[in-house]
Amino acid sequence: MVSENIAPAPDNVVSKRYELITLGDELLLGLTANGHLTFIGAQLGRHGVLLQRNVTITDEADAIVAQFRESWARADVVITTGGLGPTCDDRTREAVAAVLGQQLVFEPGIVKVIEERFARHGRKMTDNNLKQAFRFEHGEVLPNANGTAPGLWVEQDGKVLVMLPGPPNELQPMFSEQVVPRLAKLGLLLDREAYVQIRTAGLGESALEMKLQPIFARHGDALSIAFCAHQGQVDVRLSSPSGRLSIAEVESIAAECVKMLGEDFMCYGADSLAKVAGDLLRAQERTLAVAETATGGLLASEFTGICGASKFFAGGCVCYSNESKMQLLDVPECLLEQHGAVSAENAAAMALGAAERLGADYALAITGFAGPCGGTNENPVGTIYIALHTPHGVWSKKLHYPGPRATVNRRAVNAALDWLRRELVRTHSGSTTAVRTGGCT
Amino acid sequence: MVSENIAPAPDNVVSKRYELITLGDELLLGLTANGHLTFIGAQLGRHGVLLQRNVTITDEADAIVAQFRESWARADVVITTGGLGPTCDDRTREAVAAVLGQQLVFEPGIVKVIEERFARHGRKMTDNNLKQAFRFEHGEVLPNANGTAPGLWVEQDGKVLVMLPGPPNELQPMFSEQVVPRLAKLGLLLDREAYVQIRTAGLGESALEMKLQPIFARHGDALSIAFCAHQGQVDVRLSSPSGRLSIAEVESIAAECVKMLGEDFMCYGADSLAKVAGDLLRAQERTLAVAETATGGLLASEFTGICGASKFFAGGCVCYSNESKMQLLDVPECLLEQHGAVSAENAAAMALGAAERLGADYALAITGFAGPCGGTNENPVGTIYIALHTPHGVWSKKLHYPGPRATVNRRAVNAALDWLRRELVRTHSGSTTAVRTGGCT
Repeated sequence: MVSENIAPAPDNVVSKRYELITLGDELLLGLTANGHLTFIGAQLGRHGVLLQRNVTITDEADAIVAQFRESWARADVVITTGGLGPTCDDRTREAVAAVLGQQLVFEPGIVKVIEERFARHGRKMTDNNLKQAFRFEHGEVLPNANGTAPGLWVEQDGKVLVMLPGPPNELQPMFSEQVVPRLAKLGLLLDREAYVQIRTAGLGESALEMKLQPIFARHGDALSIAFCAHQGQVDVRLSSPSGRLSIAEVESIAAECVKMLGEDFMCYGADSLAKVAGDLLRAQERTLAVAETATGGLLASEFTGICGASKFFAGGCVCYSNESKMQLLDVPECLLEQHGAVSAENAAAMALGAAERLGADYALAITGFAGPCGGTNENPVGTIYIALHTPHGVWSKKLHYPGPRATVNRRAVNAALDWLRRELVRTHSGSTTAVRTGGCT
Repeated sequence: MVSENIAPAPDNVVSKRYELITLGDELLLGLTANGHLTFIGAQLGRHGVLLQRNVTITDEADAIVAQFRESWARADVVITTGGLGPTCDDRTREAVAAVLGQQLVFEPGIVKVIEERFARHGRKMTDNNLKQAFRFEHGEVLPNANGTAPGLWVEQDGKVLVMLPGPPNELQPMFSEQVVPRLAKLGLLLDREAYVQIRTAGLGESALEMKLQPIFARHGDALSIAFCAHQGQVDVRLSSPSGRLSIAEVESIAAECVKMLGEDFMCYGADSLAKVAGDLLRAQERTLAVAETATGGLLASEFTGICGASKFFAGGCVCYSNESKMQLLDVPECLLEQHGAVSAENAAAMALGAAERLGADYALAITGFAGPCGGTNENPVGTIYIALHTPHGVWSKKLHYPGPRATVNRRAVNAALDWLRRELVRTHSGSTTAVRTGGCT
């Protein structure tokens, strides 16, 4: 669950009304998740704007006209996604032009770019692509480096309209590199981060607030604080919407918080636990291996998004059967017979085996019952054992998470990664003898 | 990309207007994906309804009142999610009651259920939970088996309002088990599947259409056909909105299509490739192991959602380093030196090693450059080698996918699973000598 206390204060930074219109029957039929809302909402939030409304409608021209008219009347900035492609279903341009009272004009420059793009891929442009070469008569074109349909930009009636192509790999760079700077130039969002974000791990929201209260108390109303909790991590966002604190002052308060937090501090910004732990491994020239049962590849896949992960990530094993634990990780058969696969002993043996087999300095292991099936009286569904192997020993702990399988797995992976991160932070600061919690084996 | 041709025809089945209002700043700030749209949109689609609009707004009472008033005026059914919890931010109930002109009344029965729930978890109910015990004076309560806040149901002005709690594990069973049957009873959606869905794999949309055209042509307008393509799979949805074909007739046409499709047919409904391949393995009492580099756990994790997967899935290895390929999978060092890690030879060696190490009958391996970094002149980013080990030999093929990393990985995993599925279908039908494409090693 995400904490409630995350909205910027009403007077926070930019009080312009933004609306996002996402087009597509595939969204309404549940065939595709609405990633545009997630991406654009987060980008606007970082620049001091709380998106006021997102509307998803069908591809029908009538629906587009009605919705755009309504949003255009009440918003300062309207962003649309999708419907700019070459097929006959892509009617957004025409529908919006009608509401704006603008003509669409043919732009030969766009055709040239599309033709060159086709040529680079060794293909010839088909005529339906010419549809994408129309822009609003009083408007501009946002070049698309990753696809054929350019974005469109209109300033009219003291408002801004931004139309973006649907594919995420085209939309996202266009938004970050072109739209954000243009909006910032017009004073419609901040040209910098709206807040300093401190990411913490392993500490609940109220414990975090208690810990930082002495610092916050000194600044009263001048400092705005928002918490955002998500599955084992809590972000603290510091800002001064009233402007009574300078950016440098907010940054200095953040630095104080970081010092106070110690190893509960994970990073500034929004890096993942795997990224932070990976950076620590790289800095210490250490390597990691993983072994998992219930989470079946989820822990390993945390590292696939990180460029150059092969520098520190040796690999991992997904072991469903006892046979595979013995074969891949040298877990002794007698250990599995005596303690079972869901046990602290097996978790530790898996971590040790992964480290030895893969020649890694560190290893993480996860085993347990994530549900919905499985589970015993002693270890009901939601019971997870994690283990950490380090150059100076191996430890394991028992955890229990309520909720559906995906939640249990996500929290187990986060708990394992955070354990490694803390260990690496301690090693880095020279205090490797710190007391650990949990049952040692 | 999802195909455009997926919307039910305008006269399809149920022409009621549904709107979905999803509440929460966390959605607008991009902190949480809007999974409610995906789930509810898909459920309605299955029962013959195309959701007309989804609006996401902030938690502010004014915004809720304005949006609910607008949606209530034009829709036949309005569904809201979120804002029913015990905290002071949860204002949805009051805002909606004001628009409906209804009072909220205290329902002691709800309190009793909440108290029992707390007691079962060994906790005492706090007073703020009493907020959840209010229902509309002219309305009903939808019991919540998985949380404290019940759903609310109102029939008024010839329309229906459904208010659902935000947590997905509470909302989803409530919707499937209570809301769908209630709406069907009122004739607002179908009490059965709106279409027969045939899922295919490995065939493009146009090739599929060509193949099935002779069957479709015989039924003309009476049969409605919709295609939905998603990364290596295409769904064909058959229905008869006009009612000129009976359900039995549509099912019989679907059976004809399945026969015509041969091994391109994957399943009826919406099972995943891993589920279908897993069922075939289970039926043939065979086991599978996997080995992966670039996809780093994605292939293995396809099996984690399947209950009882340990019956047929032995496990997997994620090998980032050459060292790990040698250690876990016995890939010969000389092979890696001669051919490199991204090669048909290594893919085959990894599959063989996984099968032998894990004692599995079948094995899949994936290696390649998914991007954004890596790649060579010979094997640019997007190059993937997949290999399949079977009891009668090992094969590998080279593939190339354009697009961002996540797309390349997803398509590689689907291609590998489909290869296995086809092999198992052939074994099942006794034709194991079918010609295979791709470079053999």
